[in-house]
Amino acid sequence: MKVITLGLLGLGTVGGGLVNILRTSLPEIERRLGKSFRVERIAVRDLNRARNVNTDGIALTDDPFSVVQDPNVQVVVELMGGTTLAKDLVEQAIKNGKHVVTANKALIALYGNEMFALAKQHGVQIYFEAAVAGGVPVIKALREGLAGNQIQWLAGIINGTGNYILTEMKKPSADFAVVLKKAQDLGYAEADPTYDVEGIDAAHKLTILAALAFGIELNFTQVYTEGISQVSADDIRFAQQFGYEIKHLGTAARTANGFSLRVHPTLVPKTVLIANVNGVMNAVMVNGNHVGSTMYYGPGAGAGATASAVMADLIDLARGFDAPADSHVPGLAFQPDAIQRDAKFEPIDAIETAYYVRCTVKDHPGVLAKISQVLANHDISIEHLHQEPLGEEADFALMVFTTDVVQESRFNHALAELENLKDVEGKIARIRIGAMS
Amino acid sequence: MKVITLGLLGLGTVGGGLVNILRTSLPEIERRLGKSFRVERIAVRDLNRARNVNTDGIALTDDPFSVVQDPNVQVVVELMGGTTLAKDLVEQAIKNGKHVVTANKALIALYGNEMFALAKQHGVQIYFEAAVAGGVPVIKALREGLAGNQIQWLAGIINGTGNYILTEMKKPSADFAVVLKKAQDLGYAEADPTYDVEGIDAAHKLTILAALAFGIELNFTQVYTEGISQVSADDIRFAQQFGYEIKHLGTAARTANGFSLRVHPTLVPKTVLIANVNGVMNAVMVNGNHVGSTMYYGPGAGAGATASAVMADLIDLARGFDAPADSHVPGLAFQPDAIQRDAKFEPIDAIETAYYVRCTVKDHPGVLAKISQVLANHDISIEHLHQEPLGEEADFALMVFTTDVVQESRFNHALAELENLKDVEGKIARIRIGAMS
Repeated sequence: MKVITLGLLGLGTVGGGLVNILRTSLPEIERRLGKSFRVERIAVRDLNRARNVNTDGIALTDDPFSVVQDPNVQVVVELMGGTTLAKDLVEQAIKNGKHVVTANKALIALYGNEMFALAKQHGVQIYFEAAVAGGVPVIKALREGLAGNQIQWLAGIINGTGNYILTEMKKPSADFAVVLKKAQDLGYAEADPTYDVEGIDAAHKLTILAALAFGIELNFTQVYTEGISQVSADDIRFAQQFGYEIKHLGTAARTANGFSLRVHPTLVPKTVLIANVNGVMNAVMVNGNHVGSTMYYGPGAGAGATASAVMADLIDLARGFDAPADSHVPGLAFQPDAIQRDAKFEPIDAIETAYYVRCTVKDHPGVLAKISQVLANHDISIEHLHQEPLGEEADFALMVFTTDVVQESRFNHALAELENLKDVEGKIARIRIGAMS
Repeated sequence: MKVITLGLLGLGTVGGGLVNILRTSLPEIERRLGKSFRVERIAVRDLNRARNVNTDGIALTDDPFSVVQDPNVQVVVELMGGTTLAKDLVEQAIKNGKHVVTANKALIALYGNEMFALAKQHGVQIYFEAAVAGGVPVIKALREGLAGNQIQWLAGIINGTGNYILTEMKKPSADFAVVLKKAQDLGYAEADPTYDVEGIDAAHKLTILAALAFGIELNFTQVYTEGISQVSADDIRFAQQFGYEIKHLGTAARTANGFSLRVHPTLVPKTVLIANVNGVMNAVMVNGNHVGSTMYYGPGAGAGATASAVMADLIDLARGFDAPADSHVPGLAFQPDAIQRDAKFEPIDAIETAYYVRCTVKDHPGVLAKISQVLANHDISIEHLHQEPLGEEADFALMVFTTDVVQESRFNHALAELENLKDVEGKIARIRIGAMS
């Protein structure tokens, strides 16, 4: 049986998970593939650290460059993360004629365009199923399963930490800060949670999904990104009353003026399946012009789930090892010379969407009339409205409402006028509503 | 650009959908694939029938054998359905060295073992993504995306008609017969609905999914099959009260004694995502030993969705056209010589499951004590119970309850004893509860 040799960069959660799969499931993999794998060498940070994984028969090294230079290694599996040393190593591996499998979304999102060009030049492939939605084979669905479609839009819960926080906030007296602390205690959120809660991690992943969906370059800087730290437990409660769940969605869509790429909290109608995706789970809806809407759901993180995706890449790579170049699925889903290099992106204030709005107002008659008048002046209609006294004194009320679909710039003008009203206290909160159809 | 030539058998809903994709989306497909397609010849039943699809430049024939014999056809796309003429044609095509793409689940489920052997002998491939869950690329997920896992179990809503009926039955005064009539009027159900509502169609699809998941032969005769015609609107309402939705699931699982393959109505906890899949949509949960539970969701029927899956198969086939045999994903997911030929299947009365039970009882004190005693004698516990007067006279009550997990044969004995009680009227209805974890 033909054996493909691997060199691993990193033996943390995912690296350990991959070694575990190879230790426990290689016979089942060989039954499918008709080929096998052997790990030749693994680069770790600290050779003396105790590990839970059996590395018998594998050379461990603390020199990662020795892995990408090892002539016995055919495929380099990059599981160390980061975009500096990891980038150097992946480039070296490519230049040394080695295929690369990586779970590194930041690396692909930020440097993928150059890396895929370099890989083409050296006749090697880069696989990255684990970079988005962990164990869920959504990259395969986009690159292959839906390849007969022009993808119209996609929308995903692609950060498990954020979804865990929003799910927990549905419980009584669970506001953002409280739940974040709990998520950190459970190990779901980092000590510095910025990447997750401010949407940067999701924006990396959305960058990748959009390129694969539309046949455009990786355009991380074009992703409008808004986190979940401003979502309140009140917002979640009112959204539910209006028939929605609040999800932190990454959305990529074709629009009249190009493409819209954005990550922000979104009200999703409860009748849409993705509204029911809770906890740390991930899910991506993909709408194709022929198939309609499909969805891919599963664990977005964890040793086994992420390593499952890495393993699937290795199996694909091993299958096509001796196949001609034109039989390989292109790294970015489209033939390199067919990727659109001059894609136009819609700025956030040009998008058209409905809104949920929450504001604190003086609790006396006539306030709603004034607010409605400002909105009417901007041709914005209220769809649902709810008002309730705020606290004990009842001088103020909490007013929440949803609007019809309006251009964001027009909505922003109306919002600024509303904030200037004497009857409106402080800043107004607003969350976009997803149409999802 | 290399062009792959196609011959179509059938130009109904799916055939028309495929021609439409090729007419409208070929440039996008070429951007992905770097190759193209041309339809050489289509076999139709009636050459004179008016059609909604543009067949300019394509030879139409009413002799389907002329398609599988056409030396200019490289791939035969079988979209006519049935298992007699379609089987002859597919076999002829294979013997003539042509690859086959089919959407025909009955053909694969019943004759796939021989067909894949024949295809191997003639060095051609058979693709069938459209045979299960329409446009949802779940076969690709099983064969490739989750290939690093040993699949533990899968559970799917794989018949849209059945799911539409069960969803509609949640509405007031919508019992099975009423809703079936509506489904027939809307074209969701056939005039003879047996294949859909009695679970035969789902059993065909489950046969295919199980083979791909476990590396076993196609074993249609081993699927225990029960339809939805005995599910009442009461059952759906009580299930909801107990925290469940009733779904017509196809379930395949590894068990202590082999494999369990079954299609039957199942109570699914509302907290499990698949419980929220409504209407004609399909969804398949797949649990792998490393990845955990994943789910694939989308339209299971319709011209565009089904043709999208056929198109994805054609793209895969075209990609690997000049690649060596060991680079192809095996038809049944596992290498032919690694498929388990002597798989053992668990008979239905050996399965272990919890149950929902509905019975009509005399409405007087002491009935529950008698019922509980019978169950206790068989070591079966009641988990939830609800009783309500039946109709105006109130001589009888409707009693529903759920049990803990018990072996089906033991449960059946208890049920027979319950039916013999003087206080129990008529037959007792029971529906299995899915654990889904």
